[in-house]
Amino acid sequence: MDGAFGEIQDAVDILKRRFGDRLTTNASVCERHGTDESYHAPKAPDAVMFPETTAEVVEIVDVCRDHRTPLIPYGVGTSLEGHIAALHGGVCIDLGRMNDVLRVNPEDLDVTVEPGVTRKQLNAYLRDTGLFFPIDPGADATIGGMAATRASGTNAVRYGTMRENVLSLSVVLADGRQIRTGARARKSSAGYDLTRLFVGSEGTLGIIVEVTLRLYGIPAAVSAAVCTYPTVDDAVKTVIETIQSGIPIARIELVDDVQMRALNNFSGLGYRERPTLFFEFHGSESGVAEQVDDVRAISDGHGGDDFMWASSTEDRNKLWQARHDAHYANMQLRPGAKAWPTDVCVPISRLAECIAETRADIAESGLLAPIVGHVGDGNFHIDMVLDPEDAEEVARARALNGRLVSRALAMEGTCTGEHGIGYGKMEELAAEHGDAVDVMRGLKQTLDPLNLMNPGKIVTV
Amino acid sequence: MDGAFGEIQDAVDILKRRFGDRLTTNASVCERHGTDESYHAPKAPDAVMFPETTAEVVEIVDVCRDHRTPLIPYGVGTSLEGHIAALHGGVCIDLGRMNDVLRVNPEDLDVTVEPGVTRKQLNAYLRDTGLFFPIDPGADATIGGMAATRASGTNAVRYGTMRENVLSLSVVLADGRQIRTGARARKSSAGYDLTRLFVGSEGTLGIIVEVTLRLYGIPAAVSAAVCTYPTVDDAVKTVIETIQSGIPIARIELVDDVQMRALNNFSGLGYRERPTLFFEFHGSESGVAEQVDDVRAISDGHGGDDFMWASSTEDRNKLWQARHDAHYANMQLRPGAKAWPTDVCVPISRLAECIAETRADIAESGLLAPIVGHVGDGNFHIDMVLDPEDAEEVARARALNGRLVSRALAMEGTCTGEHGIGYGKMEELAAEHGDAVDVMRGLKQTLDPLNLMNPGKIVTV
Repeated sequence: MDGAFGEIQDAVDILKRRFGDRLTTNASVCERHGTDESYHAPKAPDAVMFPETTAEVVEIVDVCRDHRTPLIPYGVGTSLEGHIAALHGGVCIDLGRMNDVLRVNPEDLDVTVEPGVTRKQLNAYLRDTGLFFPIDPGADATIGGMAATRASGTNAVRYGTMRENVLSLSVVLADGRQIRTGARARKSSAGYDLTRLFVGSEGTLGIIVEVTLRLYGIPAAVSAAVCTYPTVDDAVKTVIETIQSGIPIARIELVDDVQMRALNNFSGLGYRERPTLFFEFHGSESGVAEQVDDVRAISDGHGGDDFMWASSTEDRNKLWQARHDAHYANMQLRPGAKAWPTDVCVPISRLAECIAETRADIAESGLLAPIVGHVGDGNFHIDMVLDPEDAEEVARARALNGRLVSRALAMEGTCTGEHGIGYGKMEELAAEHGDAVDVMRGLKQTLDPLNLMNPGKIVTV
Repeated sequence: MDGAFGEIQDAVDILKRRFGDRLTTNASVCERHGTDESYHAPKAPDAVMFPETTAEVVEIVDVCRDHRTPLIPYGVGTSLEGHIAALHGGVCIDLGRMNDVLRVNPEDLDVTVEPGVTRKQLNAYLRDTGLFFPIDPGADATIGGMAATRASGTNAVRYGTMRENVLSLSVVLADGRQIRTGARARKSSAGYDLTRLFVGSEGTLGIIVEVTLRLYGIPAAVSAAVCTYPTVDDAVKTVIETIQSGIPIARIELVDDVQMRALNNFSGLGYRERPTLFFEFHGSESGVAEQVDDVRAISDGHGGDDFMWASSTEDRNKLWQARHDAHYANMQLRPGAKAWPTDVCVPISRLAECIAETRADIAESGLLAPIVGHVGDGNFHIDMVLDPEDAEEVARARALNGRLVSRALAMEGTCTGEHGIGYGKMEELAAEHGDAVDVMRGLKQTLDPLNLMNPGKIVTV
């Protein structure tokens, strides 16, 4: 059915008359809105809309449906598997102007926001309340985009992912109806879990126009540290033992030696260029001290050197910013290169083996591909730095990615821990899920019978 | 479409020939399998099947589909909203013989079980591993049933509900296909969240034949205590402050004065018959000590008396068994009476108000209705003790239940925190979800186009 679209120009004309300069067909704006941070080929939409209210989103959906025009919701464009490429043309809905924090309920530890609020904006807004929103995918993504892609990141090992932290959503469906997927109660057994159905649906089932999130009290004590190890295996074993001991660590991130070199170059840091763990501990003063003691004992057992502490908020922010810059740092390792980030997630008992085999595979492939990972969850990334004009090198990268996914699936893992499917991993989704992909296709057809909501992503129909 | 069934006797005959005495039409067995622990009218299926393998479940589904025969999956029958009543007749699939623990992965803190394993059986099996499965709805329910009903219970405040603790499922669909909804990875962003779609679907979308669960290390220290308060409001305010302080308490349960009297009578306890909180603390020795100090300070501020400690495992088990016996204890408050348990869940900031208004409403109604609650989640139950033959009293109970749900919805809560919809709360589901119920209906029709999977529950089609 993909491709059976039409009358896109009619929809654009009608929306132009209605919304004036809040619709643009400017080529560079359209191009930017069809381009994410992935390696995959971008594709510009025919027009970009900037709605300011849910009622306007409904209007846009209605016009596009009447004219069989694809709709692609857009946050800030930081996704990594081609999620926002307008594969079949159509109208991009940039939700950036719907960026109000609607209501903080400090007593209930929740907040309701419009989808265009970014995670940093939200945390700045919350600063005086003593609360924070922990999910941190690195990029300053929008909350709507993070919900749509089931984002996770560095804090997931303690706080969970968007799956666990979205209490409810408001969604505009393909037929123009608006639904609320849940109440503000912490739990519910009232019917099918529509909230979780839309979290991670990548804009293919509806457009998220409001998100209610769980919040957390800012911990009384926070400590961050960096520690290096003789080998990646030593670092990974430190992680595995920490998780298996049930230590409630907030962040535990692996950065391999190649990646450390890239970070040092990019951010002017002076870290040792060895396999490294970045830690963060949250809790009461004594709770953090206890966690630190426990983790240090484990780390010592695997040849870790001294912990380098980042105690002030400023130092911690610097440390995590360096970690988050990995993707940009990698592109500077090789002038003119692009980076193709990919991720898998495996049961933690298989993590050391999966990373070791992957490192050997990278070496054999001759590719430059630093490894970073939210390893407390069994999740890691390789970032393949390559010359996009070199077809042979691209083919080698594609093959490496394929072997990485096959390896993860053979270890009972998943083809993506947090980057999602977009149009970059649809074959891998099929390899992982088999017949269950038909079930997903059925859900898509039920909620979007005309296949207008971000068509060509997750499943084709 | 409900009611468009047929050829049930043909299906039963075919299955009888195939499965012999693993199919029964014995009246008392059938009756028991159509009866849960709720107040709602039971309805016996035409036959009860006892499959021993997934392949047999598929066979049964295929025969029933060919003969338009409803299928009702059954665990141990402890649900509370009429979930297992065979409203349109058909075949009950008792999964009790599929009760093997298939595989424990201690290093990954997960376990895969067949659906008929009960939670106590699982924890007994795990005893030597140092791990446990925390979800505890009170009854010794099966894991399959707990997944199907999105069960939660006393430990949810710290460990979450079945929603957060099912890693993946194997499900036999209405068309006879078997799918696996996910891998063993801790997180995934690979497509729509089918696991969460089936968790809480109450047998209406497919039959769960395997469940992979998260496990937790048994805490180094566990302490439980009981404390009484001058008023319910004092107790509830202690809870609210504890949760808002972010104290990682494992259990915090409200039992009102009426319920305490029932428990004392039923279990021969000598507690004061005042509003009471039951606490449990999990963590390291020092972590538990810190939590206890913090909670005691809060409790003192609301007039709590001394904590009565249950330190040994045996004392703790006795304490929680007493709490779990509430429903049975209530039926003994009035000889010959039945009890109608109902539950709602509200944001915690509204909990004191919701419980106070509900107590006033109970008093005004003239009904006997003790209150217990997993109040750390904002979830509480009233257990309406009544004479089922007294139509006027039943009508009063129905009206009280209706007002309770309306009150919870007005406070941005949900019509059920953990008991589910079954056929007892379908009107309340519609009141809560509005148009979203149509979306649920669409999902049902997609996955079960002939409406054979536990028909008449959650949504009618």
